[in-house]
Amino acid sequence: MKTALDLAKAAKEASISLRTISTKTKNEVLQFVAFELDRQRETLQAENQKDIQIAKENGLSSAMIDRLTLSDKVIDSMIKGLHEVIALPDPVGKITDMTVRPNGLWVGKMQIPLGVIGFIYESRPNVTIDAAALCLKSGNAIILKGGKEAIYSNTALSKIMDTALAQANIPTGAIGVALTTDRQFTKELIGLENWIDVVIPRGGEGLVRFVAENAKIPILKHYDGICHAFIDASADFSMAEEIVLNAKIQRPSTCNALETLLVHKEIAAMFLPNMVDRLQKEGVMLKGDDKTRVLFPNMIPATEEDWKTEYLDLVLSIKIVSDINEAINHIDQYGSNHTETIVTNDYTHARQFLSQVDASLVLTNASTRLNDGGELGLGAEIGISTSKLHAYGAMGLKELTTTKFIAMGTGQIRE
Amino acid sequence: MKTALDLAKAAKEASISLRTISTKTKNEVLQFVAFELDRQRETLQAENQKDIQIAKENGLSSAMIDRLTLSDKVIDSMIKGLHEVIALPDPVGKITDMTVRPNGLWVGKMQIPLGVIGFIYESRPNVTIDAAALCLKSGNAIILKGGKEAIYSNTALSKIMDTALAQANIPTGAIGVALTTDRQFTKELIGLENWIDVVIPRGGEGLVRFVAENAKIPILKHYDGICHAFIDASADFSMAEEIVLNAKIQRPSTCNALETLLVHKEIAAMFLPNMVDRLQKEGVMLKGDDKTRVLFPNMIPATEEDWKTEYLDLVLSIKIVSDINEAINHIDQYGSNHTETIVTNDYTHARQFLSQVDASLVLTNASTRLNDGGELGLGAEIGISTSKLHAYGAMGLKELTTTKFIAMGTGQIRE
Repeated sequence: MKTALDLAKAAKEASISLRTISTKTKNEVLQFVAFELDRQRETLQAENQKDIQIAKENGLSSAMIDRLTLSDKVIDSMIKGLHEVIALPDPVGKITDMTVRPNGLWVGKMQIPLGVIGFIYESRPNVTIDAAALCLKSGNAIILKGGKEAIYSNTALSKIMDTALAQANIPTGAIGVALTTDRQFTKELIGLENWIDVVIPRGGEGLVRFVAENAKIPILKHYDGICHAFIDASADFSMAEEIVLNAKIQRPSTCNALETLLVHKEIAAMFLPNMVDRLQKEGVMLKGDDKTRVLFPNMIPATEEDWKTEYLDLVLSIKIVSDINEAINHIDQYGSNHTETIVTNDYTHARQFLSQVDASLVLTNASTRLNDGGELGLGAEIGISTSKLHAYGAMGLKELTTTKFIAMGTGQIRE
Repeated sequence: MKTALDLAKAAKEASISLRTISTKTKNEVLQFVAFELDRQRETLQAENQKDIQIAKENGLSSAMIDRLTLSDKVIDSMIKGLHEVIALPDPVGKITDMTVRPNGLWVGKMQIPLGVIGFIYESRPNVTIDAAALCLKSGNAIILKGGKEAIYSNTALSKIMDTALAQANIPTGAIGVALTTDRQFTKELIGLENWIDVVIPRGGEGLVRFVAENAKIPILKHYDGICHAFIDASADFSMAEEIVLNAKIQRPSTCNALETLLVHKEIAAMFLPNMVDRLQKEGVMLKGDDKTRVLFPNMIPATEEDWKTEYLDLVLSIKIVSDINEAINHIDQYGSNHTETIVTNDYTHARQFLSQVDASLVLTNASTRLNDGGELGLGAEIGISTSKLHAYGAMGLKELTTTKFIAMGTGQIRE
């Protein structure tokens, strides 16, 4: 059994070779993994069944078991994901901003891998492949610590990746999979500041907080997504309804789902009746502030606690605001810097909202559900960051790199 | 006396107004400060004298007292620094990478301030103005915690900045100066994760380690600079000599000064005699590895410890290597990711060194002393980062910002 330190040392060493590995070789490894996932489908599913069996014995919810299951559809999507990463341009080595200094020195920035990434996530085994593919393509070594529920599945996936790396003469430390169910492993891993450059926790708030509080290494994370839609006085009602419905009900358990609807007071009495009706027909439980409850006296009152809550469920709080400034102030106070949208036809308000709202994605006239690497054009994503350092928002290949300065001289010295 | 929390809350509140403040207003504030520094020169110097008096009573070294002194020359350089920051383009609000998604959504990235920056530094009071100017121009609120030795000077500078902010109707929380000599303040400050977005420690290794070990907030830091020059077989000897001399002696106490000279074995016997002679004439103490000591039997032996040491003094270790790969391996093992240079006329080696060496600045045929925001074209710098997340290398205005995604739609929803 490899310890966290074993994996970290192997990853650090592999990261040196990964710096200069060719795009062609990286794509060949990913291609091999895609091929083997298809070829070893039955073996994988047999190992996955062991995880599912244990999960059932332990009484995990059917939603959890669903997330754990490597169905044909999930394996197909893993293969598709690999082909998408193969198709993405290699970010490593790109030189930008090359300028000539007055002394003749050429100065530019070169994109380089971050080094070693610790990736800590929960049950879904397909994430194992997604994350490994993104890290390899961006020239990073990765240490994957999945949930204990997926240990058999991850072990099988790890074997495929090891073989793929070995075939390409890349040290297998490049993709290290923690084959342990020991929670202590995570704690050790996030303390290895001399070997690991960044830790990305992806999962429930408990996991993220545990990592954030114990890590000695920089982390890229997001906690909750308390997302708002502000329906301005000039909004197109039918557009606003579609956006609100999509943002709330298309997948309510996600971080970019809508939690609070802010409505301009001038249109509230006209806009809300149909909106409320449609939401209720979709089974959404509504909670309103005092002004909203003047229009809908039977609506459950929204309390201070509601403005701070990520329901992750078919629940929506509604507040009527005096103007865009009150809407932005509410978002400043209760938002979680995740995703915020305004529906408006007012040019000045659209501009103000885009400039002034502090969130990883600020939209005009579009659904909060669009905060996703694929939708934003990044290709696959490894997560969404709501902290501002390094990456704010969806993180794709580029966010798994950094830039170093390079300078090409002809004998320049400091005067 | 304001506590760390008082300053942090005021800074957080100010940071909301700073998001949308105009470039014109920011420049007017900086202009006002520059004007007042000149006008209140005598008052400032009188307050500064109090710090100097206490420093003398406490037996501080003359080097420390020199750093503390607000001479006319230092005040002039502070004023010049302000004018340089005024002249830099405002980074806030710049929109890049705007593309149209297949569904018609416009997606781009907007540069925005980080928010609130905690800046912890040692004695030099001129840094107070430099750092405040860079943060204001980039739309960030800043909390400045200077060394206790500069408390009178910083109090006087703080008054000038408060007046300048008040004149422009900017909350004075935008530039908070810790008017305390209490070390506990720093510890409190770096724990205020809900109010402060990033902490930048600038000073000796003790300070930086203290901050790194105790901060609950992301930090941008660098520890030591163990910088190397590799003189390749094809190097122009006279260019190599000038670069090595400049890198070692121009200002040996800085982090980008040279600590270890690596020489290709093929040219060592030809190159080193004159190089060694010139270094010794400049008073540099030399330490050589076994191979170097074959050529210079009287040279002090360099030990394993030497390769790991940032001398910050007129001391240089020398090692003869077999080829560029051994040089790069040595740098991987002992370098501190700060600044590395090769002197070569070999195209392949220049390319290999630039690609493969992992440092915040990698140079060909130029002095390590050029790792400086001004020399690299960033304008003023707030520090150099040797950690890779967010910023790697010299940090100027751009590195004090982040980007959020913005998206402008016409009713787009997630399918």
